[in-house]
Amino acid sequence: MNFSIIRYIMGWIIQVEGVFLMLPVIVACIYKEENGIYFLICAVAAVVLGALMTVKKPVKKSFYAREGYITVALGWIVLSLIGALPFWISGEIPHFIDALFEIISGFTTTGASILSDVEALSKCMLFWRSFSHWIGGMGVLVFVLAILPMTGGESLHFMKAESPGPSVSKLVPKLRQTAMMLYSIYTGLTLLEMVLLLIGKMPLFDVLCLSFGTAGTGGFGILNSSIADYTIYQQVVITIFMVLFGINFAFYFLILMRKVKDAFHIQEIRWYLGLYASVALLITINITWTSGGSVWINLKDAAFQAASVMTTTGYSTVNFDLWPSFSKTLLVLLMFIGACAGSTGGGIKVSRILIYLKTIKKELASLVHPRSVKILKMDGKKIEHGVLRSANVFLCTYILVFILSLILITLDENDLVTNFTAVTAALNNIGPGLSKVGPAENFGMFSDFSKLVLSFDMLAGRLELFPILLLCMPSTWKRK
Amino acid sequence: MNFSIIRYIMGWIIQVEGVFLMLPVIVACIYKEENGIYFLICAVAAVVLGALMTVKKPVKKSFYAREGYITVALGWIVLSLIGALPFWISGEIPHFIDALFEIISGFTTTGASILSDVEALSKCMLFWRSFSHWIGGMGVLVFVLAILPMTGGESLHFMKAESPGPSVSKLVPKLRQTAMMLYSIYTGLTLLEMVLLLIGKMPLFDVLCLSFGTAGTGGFGILNSSIADYTIYQQVVITIFMVLFGINFAFYFLILMRKVKDAFHIQEIRWYLGLYASVALLITINITWTSGGSVWINLKDAAFQAASVMTTTGYSTVNFDLWPSFSKTLLVLLMFIGACAGSTGGGIKVSRILIYLKTIKKELASLVHPRSVKILKMDGKKIEHGVLRSANVFLCTYILVFILSLILITLDENDLVTNFTAVTAALNNIGPGLSKVGPAENFGMFSDFSKLVLSFDMLAGRLELFPILLLCMPSTWKRK
Repeated sequence: MNFSIIRYIMGWIIQVEGVFLMLPVIVACIYKEENGIYFLICAVAAVVLGALMTVKKPVKKSFYAREGYITVALGWIVLSLIGALPFWISGEIPHFIDALFEIISGFTTTGASILSDVEALSKCMLFWRSFSHWIGGMGVLVFVLAILPMTGGESLHFMKAESPGPSVSKLVPKLRQTAMMLYSIYTGLTLLEMVLLLIGKMPLFDVLCLSFGTAGTGGFGILNSSIADYTIYQQVVITIFMVLFGINFAFYFLILMRKVKDAFHIQEIRWYLGLYASVALLITINITWTSGGSVWINLKDAAFQAASVMTTTGYSTVNFDLWPSFSKTLLVLLMFIGACAGSTGGGIKVSRILIYLKTIKKELASLVHPRSVKILKMDGKKIEHGVLRSANVFLCTYILVFILSLILITLDENDLVTNFTAVTAALNNIGPGLSKVGPAENFGMFSDFSKLVLSFDMLAGRLELFPILLLCMPSTWKRK
Repeated sequence: MNFSIIRYIMGWIIQVEGVFLMLPVIVACIYKEENGIYFLICAVAAVVLGALMTVKKPVKKSFYAREGYITVALGWIVLSLIGALPFWISGEIPHFIDALFEIISGFTTTGASILSDVEALSKCMLFWRSFSHWIGGMGVLVFVLAILPMTGGESLHFMKAESPGPSVSKLVPKLRQTAMMLYSIYTGLTLLEMVLLLIGKMPLFDVLCLSFGTAGTGGFGILNSSIADYTIYQQVVITIFMVLFGINFAFYFLILMRKVKDAFHIQEIRWYLGLYASVALLITINITWTSGGSVWINLKDAAFQAASVMTTTGYSTVNFDLWPSFSKTLLVLLMFIGACAGSTGGGIKVSRILIYLKTIKKELASLVHPRSVKILKMDGKKIEHGVLRSANVFLCTYILVFILSLILITLDENDLVTNFTAVTAALNNIGPGLSKVGPAENFGMFSDFSKLVLSFDMLAGRLELFPILLLCMPSTWKRK
C-alpha cells in the first residue's frame, strides 16, 4: 500500500472541503447568523491541515486499483468527519453521531435526516446540508481530479470507484477532460433549474438549496413539509429536473456533440423513462381509484414521488406512506432499481437491471435451443464477460450487505417495514422509506449503533459497495 | 417438440396418481367415511384415462432438454388438476380454485392452506392432503423414472428439472438406480420417524399424516393448532426429522456406503447445520430476553420454528408472528436460504448461497490483488463455470418472479408484510408467512387471481423456476 500518495490526496480533499466550507460563511454573513463562525473555524483548520499534508510530495508514484479504492473510501469518510463538525460544535445537532449521520446522508445524496424540526436550523447550516448534496452528487474525487494535475494512472481508479454503474466509459480520451465536461454539464443543468425556479418566484435561498438537492439527487428539504408547500409550477420544475438528473450524463454529452440520434438510442435511458412513466401512471390510477380526488393533482403527485424515489432524490409532496399498498410496493421496487448509470442517482441502476433481464432471456432461450449461440448486447455492442460478472457479483454483494444491515438494525425492535425500508433508503441513497421512516418521519429514533450501520450503508451504496468493503477487510492492509 | 412422448409420460403419471388415489379410499373405509367414494371415482377415472394415453407407444424417440422441462412442468400441473378433484367434487372445498391451491400447496410441499378450519375436513381428505406432500417431496417424475423402463436419454432431463439445487450429481452411474436409492432412503427415514412417533404414543393417523408432512418438508397440519398441542417429545422428534429431511440425500448415501468421513466433509451440510444452530440460538436468546419464560421451552420452540422455516416445512408450535422483530427477521431470511440441494426442502438452497458468498470473497480478493488467480472450490472440487452461471441466472430469475408476483398480489390491498411474506412462503415452498398469512392465519382471504399467482409461485419454486417459465414462453411452442 502506497501510504504517502494516499496521504497526499487526502490533503487535497481536505483543502477543497475547506474552500467549500467558506460558502456557508458567506450565507451566515448575509443572514447575520453568529453560527457562521463555526464554519470559518472549520474552513481555516481544514485548509491548514490539508496544506500541511500536501507539503511533502509522495515518494513513490506507484498507484494500483487497491490504492484507488482505499483512497476513495477514506476520502469520503474524512470528508464526512470534517463536514459534520460545524453541526456538532455549534450545538445545532448536539450529538456527534447524529451530525455525522446527517452529513454522510448529505454527501452520499441520501437525504435521510435525524432532525424532526428542520426549520429550527440556522440558514448557514441548512445551506451546508443542501450544498453537501451538490458536492457528493458528481463525486468529490472526480472534482479533485479535474483541478489537480496528476500523473494519470490513478485517475481511472478514482473514476471507477466513484462513478455509479456497471462500467465506466470515458466520454473523451483524457479522463481529466471527461471530469471537466461532466462538471460543466452538472453545473449548467443546476443553473438552468435555478433560473426556472426563480422565474416561478421561489425565494433565492430556497432556490439554491432545492436545486443543489435536485442536482445531486439528494433530497434534504429546508421545510418540515419537504416540497409540499411550494407552488404546482415549482413542484413540476423540480419533478422534471429530478428526472433529468437521473439520466446518464453521456446523453447530455452526445446532445452537446449534436449526436441527438445516438443520444436517444441509449437503451438504458429509454427503459428508465419507460419504467418511470409506467409507474407514475399506475400510481395515478391506483390513488385516483382508491381515494378519488383530481386526476391532475394525483398525476402531479405520482409523477413527483415516482421521480423522487426512482432517481433516489427523496423529496416528497405528499406522505406516500398513506398511499395504498400497490402504490407503495411500486415505489419500494423503484427504490431498488434506481436511476441510470453515470447519473447522480443511486440504486442498483437501470443498466444493471437490463443486464439481468437480458441474462434471463438468454438462459431461457438456450434451454429451448441448447445449441444456438446468443451474444448479450447493449446499445449494439457486446456486453463483455467482465461487465456481466461484475454485475452478478454486485447483486450478490448488494444482497449480502442488505441482509447483514437489516439484521443489525433489527435489534432496535422497530417493525419489519421500518427496518426493511430504512436499509433500502440508506443503501440506495434515497432518504425516506415507509412506516417509522416514512416521508413525514425521520431517522432520529434509531440507536447510535443503527445510525452507524445505516451511515455505512449510505457510503457503501454511494460508492457501489466495493471501496467501503475493501476498507473493512483486514487482508487489504496486509503487506504482501 | 415431441408431443407423442410427452403424451405417453403424462399417461404414466396419471396412472401412478390413480394408484395413489386408492390410499385415501382405504382410509375412508377404516373411518367409514362416505366421501371416500369420490377418491374411488377419481382413482378409476385416472387409471382408465392414463391407460388410454399409454396404449400407443411414442412414435419418435427424440427427447431433448426442452421436452424434459415441459414434461416435468406439465406433469406437475396435470397431477394437481386431478389431485384437486376429490376436494372439489366432494364439496369439502367447494370452490375449485381453492381446491387447486390446496393440492398444489400439497404437491409442491408448501403447506400453505386456504382453510380456516382444517379439523372440519374428513379423515380421507386430510390423509390425501398430507400424502401429497410425501409424493411431491421426492419428485413424481423421479418416481415414474424409478418404475418405468425408459430409454435413458430422457431420464437425466427429468432429474435435472425436478431435483432441487444448482447441480445434479448422480449417486451411482445409472440414473434409475439413483432414483431407486433416493426413494429407499426417503422411505426408510419416513418409517423411522413413524416408529419414533408411535413410541411417543401419537395416534396412528396423526403419525402417518405428520410424517408425510415432515418427510416432504410440506407442513400441512391436521389440527388447527398445527403441532402446538402435541407433547414435547413428539415436537422434538418432528424437529429432528425436519432437520434430517433438509439435508442433502447424498449424505445418507455416503453413510450407507460407510464413507462417514466423506459424508461429514460436505461443506453445504456443515453450513446448513451451523446456520440452523446459530439462528435457533439467537432466537432463543431474543425471545427469552424480551418475553421471559423458561429457556428450555423457548429453545424447543426456537429450534422447532427455525427448523420448520429453514427446511421450508411450515409446521408451527407457536405463533411466531408475535415474536420480536429480530426473531421474525431471522426467520424470514431463513425462508429465503432454505435447505440443502438434493433434499426435499425448498428455498434458494444453502449450496447456492455458498456459491454466492465464495464469488463475493473471490471478487474482493481480486480487487486487492488483481493479478492473483483464484479458483472457486466446493468440497475440494472446482465449481464449473456452468454451475456458477446458472446460480447467477437463478438468482436474477428468482428476484424477477418474486417482484412480478408481489406486484400482482398487491392489487388485493393487503399490508406490505402480508404480501411480501405470502410470496416468500409460496415461492420458497414454506407455508406460513407473517401478518395476515402468519402461522395462526391462512391464505383464504386472497382473491382468486392472487391464489393463482401464488399457485404459480409454488410450482415455480418447487421446480426451480425454469420448467414453469419455459411452459409460459411462446417461443417454446414455436416450430423451428
